[in-house]
Amino acid sequence: MALIVQKYGGTSVGNPERIKNVASRVAEWRARGDQVVVVVSAMSGVTDGLIKLAKEISSEPAEREMDMLLSTGEQTTIALTAMALKQIGVPAASLTGAQAGIVTDGVHTRARICNITPKRVHELLDAGNVVIVAGFQGHTAEGAITTLGRGGSDLTAIALAAALKADLCQIYTDVDGVYTADPRLVPHASKIEEISYDEMLELASLGAKVMQARSVEFAKKFNVVFEVRSSFNKNAGTIVREETKSMEEVVVRGVSLEKNQAKVTISGVPDQPGVAAKIFTFIAQANLNIDMIVQNVSIHGTTDITFTLNKDDLAKARKTLDPVVKEIKAKELIAQEGVSKLSVVGIGMRSHSGVASTLFTALADAKINVQMISTSEIKISLIIDEASGPEATKIVHDAFQLGKS
Amino acid sequence: MALIVQKYGGTSVGNPERIKNVASRVAEWRARGDQVVVVVSAMSGVTDGLIKLAKEISSEPAEREMDMLLSTGEQTTIALTAMALKQIGVPAASLTGAQAGIVTDGVHTRARICNITPKRVHELLDAGNVVIVAGFQGHTAEGAITTLGRGGSDLTAIALAAALKADLCQIYTDVDGVYTADPRLVPHASKIEEISYDEMLELASLGAKVMQARSVEFAKKFNVVFEVRSSFNKNAGTIVREETKSMEEVVVRGVSLEKNQAKVTISGVPDQPGVAAKIFTFIAQANLNIDMIVQNVSIHGTTDITFTLNKDDLAKARKTLDPVVKEIKAKELIAQEGVSKLSVVGIGMRSHSGVASTLFTALADAKINVQMISTSEIKISLIIDEASGPEATKIVHDAFQLGKS
Repeated sequence: MALIVQKYGGTSVGNPERIKNVASRVAEWRARGDQVVVVVSAMSGVTDGLIKLAKEISSEPAEREMDMLLSTGEQTTIALTAMALKQIGVPAASLTGAQAGIVTDGVHTRARICNITPKRVHELLDAGNVVIVAGFQGHTAEGAITTLGRGGSDLTAIALAAALKADLCQIYTDVDGVYTADPRLVPHASKIEEISYDEMLELASLGAKVMQARSVEFAKKFNVVFEVRSSFNKNAGTIVREETKSMEEVVVRGVSLEKNQAKVTISGVPDQPGVAAKIFTFIAQANLNIDMIVQNVSIHGTTDITFTLNKDDLAKARKTLDPVVKEIKAKELIAQEGVSKLSVVGIGMRSHSGVASTLFTALADAKINVQMISTSEIKISLIIDEASGPEATKIVHDAFQLGKS
Repeated sequence: MALIVQKYGGTSVGNPERIKNVASRVAEWRARGDQVVVVVSAMSGVTDGLIKLAKEISSEPAEREMDMLLSTGEQTTIALTAMALKQIGVPAASLTGAQAGIVTDGVHTRARICNITPKRVHELLDAGNVVIVAGFQGHTAEGAITTLGRGGSDLTAIALAAALKADLCQIYTDVDGVYTADPRLVPHASKIEEISYDEMLELASLGAKVMQARSVEFAKKFNVVFEVRSSFNKNAGTIVREETKSMEEVVVRGVSLEKNQAKVTISGVPDQPGVAAKIFTFIAQANLNIDMIVQNVSIHGTTDITFTLNKDDLAKARKTLDPVVKEIKAKELIAQEGVSKLSVVGIGMRSHSGVASTLFTALADAKINVQMISTSEIKISLIIDEASGPEATKIVHDAFQLGKS
């Protein structure tokens, strides 16, 4: 008898029909004799509706109360899912995050899980129930309801799987798994059977559609093997796990493209200690999320620092940095929208050479200009013109022969 | 510094505007220096929406899960109400029923309050907050969420007022208080300033619009004085309390009319021990709610037993009793719809005579036929033709001079 944790996202439980569909899928797994714990999100649209309601009451709703409010979304789904299971003859019982023993810190709207004491989950499982747990929520040691922020339901599933020492953790979503490239850009992209935590983390745009980085990090930390698969068909998905020897044989696991990027260059930065620190302190204080940072060697005593960020944050970045540029006596700030970030990712890069060569040759042959380059041990990221993003993705994908055979 | 418990019903918190209105009322009380605990219901329509959702999932939703589902209604309101208070600068914090320490038995969807340990309510009050508590809900000693059934939010307010030893308990609703008669029937009906628990309980149709009997009974048991008043104006309402000497001086407190009644007579019932028991056992087993029961003295060895019930239950009553009538060898079952129940209520009746005389003379003068009579210490109830109900109410109300002077 195996213990399986399954997580169904908002789209998968988006209406009563879909909840019934989830119930019959769960029933099938249970019919095999397994114990099943189901983590569900709020029905799609519900959380947005609640946020809208809060905004009608208060321009800046108190975060403690926001958690009290939003946690009702998942609570609604767990009740309905348990009802749907009982309706088809499967014993089931729902638990809120607090009832499931998920204890978090007190940082409302983006709490971190401190520990899980799943006593009641075990009791209900032992009594023969499928246990339905509300994702995205927990409570503090003092008993205040908290929510875990974006992607919180995945985190609940991974953390519960770790705490329950589950044999299997399945993240059901509206995609089939993780692909070698976005299938909308590369129609012959293939589904990845197995991927390492690190590759999943680095495959930003491909992985992020499926799962937030924090859940993958949590899974890595507690060594929880999980499968990302679709709730709308019965295809096998993508297994995410610690890297294996065989994974290293694949040089590039996938190609991801992030659109809507912008780059900001501060040119003529005096090459003195503490100057870069000043720039990035201001950026942090303004709560700007920046991505790639590139600084080349300094010539003539000054250097250029470039970083990328989401283009929606560009105006804020300008406003934040214009006074800094003056203060540090840099030459100027150059901001540019209309760029994309292309990344090739694979743990095989560590042991194989020639990846950069293949990559740049393919792009050069297609006359695609590379504006910025940044590399990590298992990833090469490039900034290119947004217009050439789709073509570049296809070319690189083919260059590494990632397509279906 | 007084401690006030206020309860606002579903209509009073029916939309964001109204919740803001409640917040500013609460703020006014608090500005007087009082500590305020606010109990709120689900926004009107929300509970029905959730029930509808459950019915789409399951024809007979599991009661445990129904409680999990419905309790989100009040949880939404407490969060929004606390936000609205904070928005206007009043420190506030919300608590679910469970968090407020309301412990119930395990009878889902109609749980009874066992005890209240309002530790966190006290803590939050002492920290200067208005505390917003979700009505209608609690949890079992084992931590399962329960709901209290119809009128449960009133019960939460009364029970919290008792547990907190509150100085004042105010039930805000969409009516101004308890009237001497339904103002739609008797336009010059007057608002009752003070009424005893027993009168409130007996004034069925007048009181029930405002409050369920179980909350009044609970208040009586724990001697909680409460005021029923409107959330839409600032008029004083009706104080409900243990009877006082001065209350006895009023012979009749009010006149109530219940429509949609039906009467069932089983005629020719053998006058033997155990026969009535058999009839009412069957009725109880069929879960039929019956109201007045009248049996007159037996002549010629048989008697007639008549009882009243809501006309919606009439078909079920017939089906239940037809075989019983045969079994006990009674003559026949006569059922009749289209009757109403008129009651005059007043604790003064205990010490004053002549109430029956005034009542029957007034009805006789108006040629209104009385079909059944039943009396208690503080109430006389009559069954009359439904068509004459409104006129009879007016006549009786005037006969006891209950109108505005």
